[in-house]
Amino acid sequence: MHATVAPDARERVTSASAAADEAGLARYARVRQASLDLLAGLAAEDTVVQSMPEASPLKWHLAHTTWFFEQFVLGAAADYRPRHAQWAFLFNSYYQAVGPMHERPRRGLLSRPTLAEVLDYRADVDAAMHERLQRPLDDGLAARVTLGLAHEQQHQELMLTDLKHLFSLNPLEPAHRAALPAPPSVPLPLDFLSGAEGVVEIGHGGAGFAFDCETPRHRTLLAPHALANRPVSNAEFRAFVHDGGYRRPELWLADGWTAVQQHGWTHPLYWSDDLDSAFTLAGRQPLDPHAPVCHVSYYEADAFARWAGARLPTEAEWEAAAAPLPVDGHFADRGVLQPRAATPGDGLRQLYGDVWEWTSSPYGAYPGFRPLAGALGEYNGKFMCGQYVLRGGSCATPPGHVRASYRNFFYPADRWQFTGLRLGRDR
Amino acid sequence: MHATVAPDARERVTSASAAADEAGLARYARVRQASLDLLAGLAAEDTVVQSMPEASPLKWHLAHTTWFFEQFVLGAAADYRPRHAQWAFLFNSYYQAVGPMHERPRRGLLSRPTLAEVLDYRADVDAAMHERLQRPLDDGLAARVTLGLAHEQQHQELMLTDLKHLFSLNPLEPAHRAALPAPPSVPLPLDFLSGAEGVVEIGHGGAGFAFDCETPRHRTLLAPHALANRPVSNAEFRAFVHDGGYRRPELWLADGWTAVQQHGWTHPLYWSDDLDSAFTLAGRQPLDPHAPVCHVSYYEADAFARWAGARLPTEAEWEAAAAPLPVDGHFADRGVLQPRAATPGDGLRQLYGDVWEWTSSPYGAYPGFRPLAGALGEYNGKFMCGQYVLRGGSCATPPGHVRASYRNFFYPADRWQFTGLRLGRDR
Amino acid sequence: MHATVAPDARERVTSASAAADEAGLARYARVRQASLDLLAGLAAEDTVVQSMPEASPLKWHLAHTTWFFEQFVLGAAADYRPRHAQWAFLFNSYYQAVGPMHERPRRGLLSRPTLAEVLDYRADVDAAMHERLQRPLDDGLAARVTLGLAHEQQHQELMLTDLKHLFSLNPLEPAHRAALPAPPSVPLPLDFLSGAEGVVEIGHGGAGFAFDCETPRHRTLLAPHALANRPVSNAEFRAFVHDGGYRRPELWLADGWTAVQQHGWTHPLYWSDDLDSAFTLAGRQPLDPHAPVCHVSYYEADAFARWAGARLPTEAEWEAAAAPLPVDGHFADRGVLQPRAATPGDGLRQLYGDVWEWTSSPYGAYPGFRPLAGALGEYNGKFMCGQYVLRGGSCATPPGHVRASYRNFFYPADRWQFTGLRLGRDR
Amino acid sequence: MHATVAPDARERVTSASAAADEAGLARYARVRQASLDLLAGLAAEDTVVQSMPEASPLKWHLAHTTWFFEQFVLGAAADYRPRHAQWAFLFNSYYQAVGPMHERPRRGLLSRPTLAEVLDYRADVDAAMHERLQRPLDDGLAARVTLGLAHEQQHQELMLTDLKHLFSLNPLEPAHRAALPAPPSVPLPLDFLSGAEGVVEIGHGGAGFAFDCETPRHRTLLAPHALANRPVSNAEFRAFVHDGGYRRPELWLADGWTAVQQHGWTHPLYWSDDLDSAFTLAGRQPLDPHAPVCHVSYYEADAFARWAGARLPTEAEWEAAAAPLPVDGHFADRGVLQPRAATPGDGLRQLYGDVWEWTSSPYGAYPGFRPLAGALGEYNGKFMCGQYVLRGGSCATPPGHVRASYRNFFYPADRWQFTGLRLGRDR
Repeated sequence: MHATVAPDARERVTSASAAADEAGLARYARVRQASLDLLAGLAAEDTVVQSMPEASPLKWHLAHTTWFFEQFVLGAAADYRPRHAQWAFLFNSYYQAVGPMHERPRRGLLSRPTLAEVLDYRADVDAAMHERLQRPLDDGLAARVTLGLAHEQQHQELMLTDLKHLFSLNPLEPAHRAALPAPPSVPLPLDFLSGAEGVVEIGHGGAGFAFDCETPRHRTLLAPHALANRPVSNAEFRAFVHDGGYRRPELWLADGWTAVQQHGWTHPLYWSDDLDSAFTLAGRQPLDPHAPVCHVSYYEADAFARWAGARLPTEAEWEAAAAPLPVDGHFADRGVLQPRAATPGDGLRQLYGDVWEWTSSPYGAYPGFRPLAGALGEYNGKFMCGQYVLRGGSCATPPGHVRASYRNFFYPADRWQFTGLRLGRDR
Repeated sequence: MHATVAPDARERVTSASAAADEAGLARYARVRQASLDLLAGLAAEDTVVQSMPEASPLKWHLAHTTWFFEQFVLGAAADYRPRHAQWAFLFNSYYQAVGPMHERPRRGLLSRPTLAEVLDYRADVDAAMHERLQRPLDDGLAARVTLGLAHEQQHQELMLTDLKHLFSLNPLEPAHRAALPAPPSVPLPLDFLSGAEGVVEIGHGGAGFAFDCETPRHRTLLAPHALANRPVSNAEFRAFVHDGGYRRPELWLADGWTAVQQHGWTHPLYWSDDLDSAFTLAGRQPLDPHAPVCHVSYYEADAFARWAGARLPTEAEWEAAAAPLPVDGHFADRGVLQPRAATPGDGLRQLYGDVWEWTSSPYGAYPGFRPLAGALGEYNGKFMCGQYVLRGGSCATPPGHVRASYRNFFYPADRWQFTGLRLGRDR
Repeated sequence: MHATVAPDARERVTSASAAADEAGLARYARVRQASLDLLAGLAAEDTVVQSMPEASPLKWHLAHTTWFFEQFVLGAAADYRPRHAQWAFLFNSYYQAVGPMHERPRRGLLSRPTLAEVLDYRADVDAAMHERLQRPLDDGLAARVTLGLAHEQQHQELMLTDLKHLFSLNPLEPAHRAALPAPPSVPLPLDFLSGAEGVVEIGHGGAGFAFDCETPRHRTLLAPHALANRPVSNAEFRAFVHDGGYRRPELWLADGWTAVQQHGWTHPLYWSDDLDSAFTLAGRQPLDPHAPVCHVSYYEADAFARWAGARLPTEAEWEAAAAPLPVDGHFADRGVLQPRAATPGDGLRQLYGDVWEWTSSPYGAYPGFRPLAGALGEYNGKFMCGQYVLRGGSCATPPGHVRASYRNFFYPADRWQFTGLRLGRDR
Repeated sequence: MHATVAPDARERVTSASAAADEAGLARYARVRQASLDLLAGLAAEDTVVQSMPEASPLKWHLAHTTWFFEQFVLGAAADYRPRHAQWAFLFNSYYQAVGPMHERPRRGLLSRPTLAEVLDYRADVDAAMHERLQRPLDDGLAARVTLGLAHEQQHQELMLTDLKHLFSLNPLEPAHRAALPAPPSVPLPLDFLSGAEGVVEIGHGGAGFAFDCETPRHRTLLAPHALANRPVSNAEFRAFVHDGGYRRPELWLADGWTAVQQHGWTHPLYWSDDLDSAFTLAGRQPLDPHAPVCHVSYYEADAFARWAGARLPTEAEWEAAAAPLPVDGHFADRGVLQPRAATPGDGLRQLYGDVWEWTSSPYGAYPGFRPLAGALGEYNGKFMCGQYVLRGGSCATPPGHVRASYRNFFYPADRWQFTGLRLGRDR
């Protein structure tokens, strides 16, 4: 999940007031601290292990996000010397233009540098950034600081999902934090609401930061359709399972059925086999029937929609519906880290927060898309193949991070993110 | 590559005159015979081997296409008894609704039934079909006959590509047929021609047969763009290779670069390492510099386009450009089975025939798409994930098989089809 | 399974009378013809497929054994030109000193040369050999002819086991030949007979041909022990299965238990899950309870012995017991190709024929072992690691092929040979 | 690498004086403390990672050896309640008779229990053991304490080899400890010394502890042979590499050559590609040409011996030569943890310590071998397949751990132990 500064945004964030605000010291310090806050209650051991090739050790996330500032902001100074000569090799994620890098599936082999050394590195780079941010930044640098903070927030969510995956593989089922008391959960009846049709505009076009893949803002054509008023719930997904959902090939995409057979899927990730509980960051917890189903792959989302006689929304349908709404919702700041049932109310509920919503749209370039020049052009563009767009953020997304035009993307078999679905249909 | 009858087409092909023509005895016999003609010069041994999981033995193709008529046409009669009880298991490709099936990667393990037994089976089913086609067909059955013949033609192209792949793995480099003399090849200068913009209609909507995935005809929005007047040539692709195309990650999609590393790709499939010759169905032959490059994956097509400062066309751009043109071109009936250089001329050349052209469009459902009910609904719909659309047919496609709305689709790493590319760009 | 001429044998077989007999034209023609006889009832298609990396297509066996004579006998003439320049690459099995070779797991990709071309090649080489054998042979060449014929016989057994494996994977379960009527089968009570103890001599030392790995004849020390009077029967092995044999890790070697888990073994290869029938070269047949159990791996043989409170014999114990006995038994010439129950009688029964008997002896060099110089030194010596010795020949072994000192060897997980076991124990 | 108490040893160690000595409090405390001493200079992070399936995290070793005492000594008391109910699942290595266990390749996924929790567990169990050892032990229990301490020592060596492997995969090449100053190294000329021949006795038979696989003491027959006076040196092995050793298939066992190709071996593990330095527990260090070559597989040892016109010794030849010598040598207590050159002198040098010496003997049961009853019978017996015997101990072996009859064993492809070789030959 990756991004870069939209061309027009770059100019704007470097105005005097923007520098004092968006890229200001306080915001930098606050976002950076949020990463460290995630370590509360963890042991150094918890930050070392890589539970699968797609996930990274927490220690790696902490170092990589720091390297990002060192490489793209501090490193812009001709006389800058990296803190540790070999660490660029270790903590460069995938920027081929910057230089060679450690293979991703081997990140878990690195017991060194230790967590303490990584935290020292963070402190060193933060001190240098603190000094640098007190001097004027040109347009490009200011934009890179803004990008670096958005990047840090993306990794904050990944730290939570990677930790959850790691703990889920431990027979002791450790809890990252205590479960918070939940309000009584009530069902919200499913309803379909008509969306806009005809030519609409989507994509980022106004002020403020956006990743390059959200641009340019452009016209697109919407067919008549409707969207469900809320995400699919655990109870609804359980009905799908009880109806033989995972045993009926006619409900699945061919590749999805192959994945079901290959991985032996019989329910969403983290659910118990009796369908009554799920592993969470607060350990094993009973399933709330009315909360949005979570940790389903695109294949499962698609199969459920077919079973329900519906389909997934396109990303344009989703964005057209979400654009007028305030970006409010259940994000990571509530500390629950598990989706909660919708509260009663009219209209489209929970578009933002709780669960990322799979759309039927393959992740690709908008018409006229241009990646940034240089290494940061690798942030998003090179991933535009084989993945699907998700929208809206989740209960593990830092507040303030997403917007209507925000495009998240994962492979159709991925399940370890907080991913759910909302139904759509033709009208 | 798979298909089904478009709803409106179904009604039409069953009119009295259509039955006498499209689904008539003569056409049935002609299409079926074309499959057998492909065996000329081959030994029984050549029809047994499966060279990779994606390919099938020729013997299997011959049996599967026969089973298709048995299952979906003859089998519609309540009292029909299959010729061989177990063969449905062996020769059902992927129709889960029909019953269980032999695993695809194991098709090459079947020395029995022998080729002779399969040919007997073809003769038996053809005799029964001959008898059946002389009696009235209702709408559904007539549509299935038409579909079965389109299906047979798809497998005729696959027989050629699978055989080519098999022979290419044999150190003896056998030739399927003699090379035909080629006219002198001359370069046609590359030119970009503006395409339509704004709202256009694409998809199949008129009379005649089409696969379900080509429907419904619908409106879509085209951004200003231009298309190259001809496909990319071998000489142009060789320049890409010489410029380090396969060694520069910045030119590639992330998954494409992974494929390059994993498979050790350094040039298109079947090219010699000195870039001077290619393995063909007539054995190893010198590369014609002006002929369209062939046997490139989507990843290679995309990387070439990026290197050339262009992009791939969308399938809508392609179809809008192709729709007004007659479906003329270099198809399999010429017996060359290798793309040839464009002949001089104005306008868009070689849209039909020579090479399938990769588009930037992931294969998905058109707005309002509905697969057919029943097992034949599996023909196309369940493959709408992870693949890309190709357009226009190739030098191995039976003449009369493609049309402007025809959507072929393969995975982005596939290279064994006759796949090339045409450049597009924003205007 | 591989061999070479024992040093002393080499001298002997080249005496005038030996040449006229052992290496004579009649014997050459008879052994070579026996390979062709195995094709009776088969289609060309049956000779192409490779069912697993360990097995080879029948066509390959026919060509390889021919290449062996061409390479090591005809090729010894300075002016000899190979029939087909590239075939040495295709049909060299593993003689690195001769030159590079086609990878073993890719043998099944070769539809060409066809069976007919291979048979022509056999005829050509046989004609040249016929001519050559009428002229005097020096010691080395005569030994190589003898070796080539022993080699051909080894491949005759492999042709049967590879064909059986191939047919077993075909859901149609084809039969290679009709089942022969079997005499009534009666149980022979199990009895343990004391073996020799103290220093004995084993290994080949006398006249006649032997592979190099059977030499030198040497002294070894036998501890007090006893051997069962007959191999373990199907009924006995079924009792092991019924007693949870495949579910009790305490009965297995660690690597054996891993194999059980990995492959999902629940009974010997080719047995039906109801333990009542087995796939044979005559198709599926009821299990004869009193016939020797067959197609068990070393791991299964070892686990059975542990379950039975016994152990496998060492190869020295086996050879000391077998040496005084005539090499009579149920070999391939009876045409049954399935082990049969012992006929009543005293003493050690069925040491020769019916099933190869796993011993507890890892295949290694005898003290003072020297492989032949040159490429033929690769015949046996380089396989002396990781495999176990089997003794006695099977119902698929050509008559006259084995002797008391004969050492066959396979990996402990291999099951597709006609492998069974005889119990031994300390005394 | 595994063991159990020899039957006769069991009786002896339980005599009053033996209990006070061998199984006494002081020895228990000393051996247990030696495991903790290995943590000096390490971070908690270093104890979590599993670098390959064959290796285990240090944290796991510390817990497993503790569980061994809890399970087999403390657990013998009817009223004993395990400290942590689920830990037996996590820290049981392979004792199927005790219960199910965590899969070995997943040991590195466990960030919890943390190192601190494991150290608490050690302290708890040690306190209970301290209490228990002050009360009388019956024969069986005393033997189990002795076995547990030998077991702990085996894991001490594994902790060092597993840590070395882990650190070697880190591009930072961390050092576990500082390099100790080495005395000047001088070459000792290679010489072959005749060994005993005829019937000799080997195996453990006297007083004191031995693993079950070292028994029973038995007669065996030695052929005339000679052994080299010292292990093969780095300089000698470098000559093999320079002579194309890793590129000449004729020097290798077939499985060895496959391993060379598959793993891309071009020199011993940990050597630099320029053959001048090696990674050690003190970081990268220059190669001492006269020190024994180390970290070679059986395949490499065997190929070197063939290249040198020699062979590996049998384990019986080794033991017969070593039995009269005192068990002196360079063990782990010197703190060097890297083999050192032999010091000048006559006779067989360095039989004990420096490097484990591969023998040509597959690891198997001695005649009359009986594993212990119960779960501890799994210690050694079930590994008697596919591995080769090594003799003599290494520079990472705790002093006092080995003896002449000691049999270590590893798979022929294993290289991460301190494994070298000594040449032998027929005489």
